[in-house]
Amino acid sequence: MLRKIKRLFDMVGVDTIIIKNASMPFIDENFFYFTGREGVWEESIAVVKEDGVFTISSPLEEGDYVYKTKEERDRILRSIVEGRVGVNEERLSHKDYSHLKKLFGKLHDIGKEIKLLRAVKEREEINKIKKAVRIAKSIADEVDFHGKGERDVKADIECMMLRHGVKPSFDTIVAFGKNSSKPHHVSSNKKFTYPVLIDLGTRYKNYCSDITITHPGRHLRKYEVIHDALMLAIDLMEPGTRARDVFLSVDRYLSRYGIKMIHALGHSIGINVHDGLAINSRADFVFEENMTFAVEPACYCKNFGIRIEEDVVIGKRKARIIL
Amino acid sequence: MLRKIKRLFDMVGVDTIIIKNASMPFIDENFFYFTGREGVWEESIAVVKEDGVFTISSPLEEGDYVYKTKEERDRILRSIVEGRVGVNEERLSHKDYSHLKKLFGKLHDIGKEIKLLRAVKEREEINKIKKAVRIAKSIADEVDFHGKGERDVKADIECMMLRHGVKPSFDTIVAFGKNSSKPHHVSSNKKFTYPVLIDLGTRYKNYCSDITITHPGRHLRKYEVIHDALMLAIDLMEPGTRARDVFLSVDRYLSRYGIKMIHALGHSIGINVHDGLAINSRADFVFEENMTFAVEPACYCKNFGIRIEEDVVIGKRKARIIL
Repeated sequence: MLRKIKRLFDMVGVDTIIIKNASMPFIDENFFYFTGREGVWEESIAVVKEDGVFTISSPLEEGDYVYKTKEERDRILRSIVEGRVGVNEERLSHKDYSHLKKLFGKLHDIGKEIKLLRAVKEREEINKIKKAVRIAKSIADEVDFHGKGERDVKADIECMMLRHGVKPSFDTIVAFGKNSSKPHHVSSNKKFTYPVLIDLGTRYKNYCSDITITHPGRHLRKYEVIHDALMLAIDLMEPGTRARDVFLSVDRYLSRYGIKMIHALGHSIGINVHDGLAINSRADFVFEENMTFAVEPACYCKNFGIRIEEDVVIGKRKARIIL
Repeated sequence: MLRKIKRLFDMVGVDTIIIKNASMPFIDENFFYFTGREGVWEESIAVVKEDGVFTISSPLEEGDYVYKTKEERDRILRSIVEGRVGVNEERLSHKDYSHLKKLFGKLHDIGKEIKLLRAVKEREEINKIKKAVRIAKSIADEVDFHGKGERDVKADIECMMLRHGVKPSFDTIVAFGKNSSKPHHVSSNKKFTYPVLIDLGTRYKNYCSDITITHPGRHLRKYEVIHDALMLAIDLMEPGTRARDVFLSVDRYLSRYGIKMIHALGHSIGINVHDGLAINSRADFVFEENMTFAVEPACYCKNFGIRIEEDVVIGKRKARIIL
């Protein structure tokens, strides 16, 4: 991690980075990225400097520094923070921003740089993602939905995750029949019928997987179109290719069938299930080795939807599906 | 809800309130409070006006207004928003704050007023909280921890929640032996031994419960002290009493036994498990009928901890434990 932090400081002109969690659920995932800690860490702060990362916490957590009052917290903060201060404006409440500004003057937004840093994974991070994907796939293979309601299948899946010692990386989506036409369907009491769309992900040691399987029933032809779109996307995701171009190629392919994508073709995965990069028509980043993505072409018709989602690692020459 | 919104607008000098969710997990629970919706609602906006509440969402959700681009979203926003604009600075990222400021000029922080509004519950809200508490208690009664590891017991508990059709309102804490001395212990492989501390909560139709049981083993005397502190607190939580005074009374009582509270004596519960009010030494709010709290006196020694937590509703004359 220190090597990556060194790279980050080379990119941005700041001397100290402050990552501050508010109360749940306003927890900046970068806190865990930089510190490697697990748990809740409400109202805790990670101070990132070139020579190390320090945590400041309430007595509820075991931070490197522990504060009892906000005044004490600010005293500790003042004693560690040096020079120009960087923050992540997307993950800092305006209230905390105002307070830090009062303490340290001008704050520099380095959210974009942190996103880019996080996009390229270390070997260790990729291994955790692979493990998360494998658990998700083994659960998707095992789950039995015949004769059950959406909500029961969702409970079955999430219980299996807990038994594997992992958590859902997001609320599992189980959609039967017409409900599959809603991308973010909230599972109901609806009884099993085809198509069956299941979007699930696990979080293993802070790292996320995100896969979707659709059992298309009689909509096999549409399924094949989406499957081919997925293969096309993955074939195009080579190091050096611009993300937008991959989106546009898949979009063009799907448009031949009258299918219009209503969400991104994919997104980076990592410590967050949407880890910062989206593969859409405006994506100007370039694929690099060791980036990790969920790729999810889909079509949503009036009475059914089909989505197929695989997680991939960008290799030296091409993207590989995590099996 | 409209009656409560009317009361809110009487308290604050604004014409429109904007609640904006960022991406997960930066979702402002007030979005669900004002709209009554369930689900994810990333990058969605609730616009609250005296005559109604409107949702603006991406095509992934079924908002009253659906936007495809950010420009479209802003156009819709401009067409609904009128007059002075209120926001909740604690739950709005600095990035979104800056953007809204560009669109609407000065923004007024009404976070404190929303907190106060939410503190006093409607009958319907109390019923949901009661249901959430009852499910939590029935699970706490049922769970078997003998001979198991912390992580397995945690999985058992959370599976039981899923079977009941509810979710954990926070990461369940299961702590055996020495681990009970850490308030926010992350469950490990540690095998069953006394004391057993289990802190669990459920979320039922958006509303949270939060209870803690401790099986003290040989530390029964300390347990009784904490139990008496809990009863003392609940007896004191009458309408009209200042929260700080309750904290100080309990603190004084515990200090006779050399016990120092290292966290608040309790917190309001509602749509969020920490719903905005904390009963601590600085709490200057006054208890009112229909407020709901989790009360959790505790002691943390070197080798064990004891915490007992009950959820209460403030009635006309006194607080009542939800059974």
